[in-house]
Amino acid sequence: MPEPIVRAHHPFDEAIALTPIAAADAESDRGSTRSWGGRTHPAYANMVGPYGGIMAAQALNAALQHPELLGEPISLTVNFAAALADGPFRAEARPARTNRSTQHWLVSLLQTDEVGAESTKITATVVTAKRRTTWSSSEGAKPGVPPPASVARAAPVRPTAWFERYELRFCAGEPPRDWDGAEADSETQLWVRDEPARPLDFCSLAALADAFYPRVWRKRALLTPAGTVSMTVYFHVGAAELAAVGTGYLLGQARGQRFFNGFFDQHAALWSEAGDLLATTHQIVYFKE
Amino acid sequence: MPEPIVRAHHPFDEAIALTPIAAADAESDRGSTRSWGGRTHPAYANMVGPYGGIMAAQALNAALQHPELLGEPISLTVNFAAALADGPFRAEARPARTNRSTQHWLVSLLQTDEVGAESTKITATVVTAKRRTTWSSSEGAKPGVPPPASVARAAPVRPTAWFERYELRFCAGEPPRDWDGAEADSETQLWVRDEPARPLDFCSLAALADAFYPRVWRKRALLTPAGTVSMTVYFHVGAAELAAVGTGYLLGQARGQRFFNGFFDQHAALWSEAGDLLATTHQIVYFKE
Repeated sequence: MPEPIVRAHHPFDEAIALTPIAAADAESDRGSTRSWGGRTHPAYANMVGPYGGIMAAQALNAALQHPELLGEPISLTVNFAAALADGPFRAEARPARTNRSTQHWLVSLLQTDEVGAESTKITATVVTAKRRTTWSSSEGAKPGVPPPASVARAAPVRPTAWFERYELRFCAGEPPRDWDGAEADSETQLWVRDEPARPLDFCSLAALADAFYPRVWRKRALLTPAGTVSMTVYFHVGAAELAAVGTGYLLGQARGQRFFNGFFDQHAALWSEAGDLLATTHQIVYFKE
Repeated sequence: MPEPIVRAHHPFDEAIALTPIAAADAESDRGSTRSWGGRTHPAYANMVGPYGGIMAAQALNAALQHPELLGEPISLTVNFAAALADGPFRAEARPARTNRSTQHWLVSLLQTDEVGAESTKITATVVTAKRRTTWSSSEGAKPGVPPPASVARAAPVRPTAWFERYELRFCAGEPPRDWDGAEADSETQLWVRDEPARPLDFCSLAALADAFYPRVWRKRALLTPAGTVSMTVYFHVGAAELAAVGTGYLLGQARGQRFFNGFFDQHAALWSEAGDLLATTHQIVYFKE
């Protein structure tokens, strides 16, 4: 395969860009609250509001931009309280607690409505830590699948902008061809990377954790409305290991365990081509009918 | 088996009890913040600070006690920023956003130190929702194991108080008999219920989600220091289904996927004896060496 073209100004970097609003005015023992201005990006639009993964990356980036940041991300939980409207938002981040080697963050994305009232659209918690070198081991083995070049690139399930920001190659569990209500299992295996290709970092890995289409679509072969309510990402590598992945493909595997009265779960894992387990992720998703 | 004895005053209920501190003084468009007084309970003490599961239940209970509560718990994420000291704490809960059928909560557990400074020990987010009856399905099948009565009850791994608050019957992956550093897989299957028996509810289910001993102990057969950093519980049933479980045993299965430079993950599921998947849960855990 030819080397991928890496754009200098990638839409992902534009989408997660945050501009400091003001210096901290509320320093306290609990850490200082900082604010940034952000903006939704049309390249990552979803059917209603932005792609969940880009909002997860924006929330994570607020903590990573904070001058009091300690270490690298270990855990991220994002709660999608309401859809972001197209336009500007305010990101707020505060270290709720800073220990010697770990730090606990509270993050919110907020928007102001037409009458000037600001409301919370996204809440998030982040744990960052200084890792030390320890005994390490992996039990989650990368499934055996054909290499990316031998798997066809997928056409978008639906004409949404964010789908075009990822190169998706389904090894198993592709979106149903016929939305005929024929139930199947909920598993999907796919190769994925940013489109255009972009070197992997914590924010793009967080966004990639949401790149699976709703498990209920796979399970039921029905395009029922569905939206992520809460999503957690555990990062299993440091910045050096992410840099080593570069613009390579990730293998993702996702599955649901229970669909019950309006909500289902999804658990997923993301490996590098070399077989390194980079992240595990879970989400709980609303569905209708 | 004889019917279990259910105590009128169960230590679990004592441990999660919260007393309102004052009426809301900060009503706002973002919802009102309420405060409660709580206290650590010696029956749920761990090696350093309380058992994580009881703190998860205390945090969840703050949201459930709030007069503005909408619906039942769908998702809970608890971040263990610092160990609670033995004694009183303050629980604070605020609905960050209330939609028509879902509600997003921010919860903190705080303690005041000897010089009067209050600091955050636990942060949590909770999603509650009014469920509607929909198509439902389960893919996470309960593993085939012998019934609880035919599995021996476990002796405590270490003499910690909380271990005596659960009846644990290991079907597979029991704690190593010899701490000899012999590596194994990280999987555990066990029957578990409160000791003494207590009818299941959302708070006790949240606590049970943490009833697996650290996966790194199983994996390495080494008693390395370990502590949960962040834990998420997805609730896959409503109050009626929990009530139907009553004081029955739950089957729990837990496994780690990656152990890397000081942190590992654990994913687990909890089924009723009847085979109903009640909750899935994930945590990221610090370990030393």
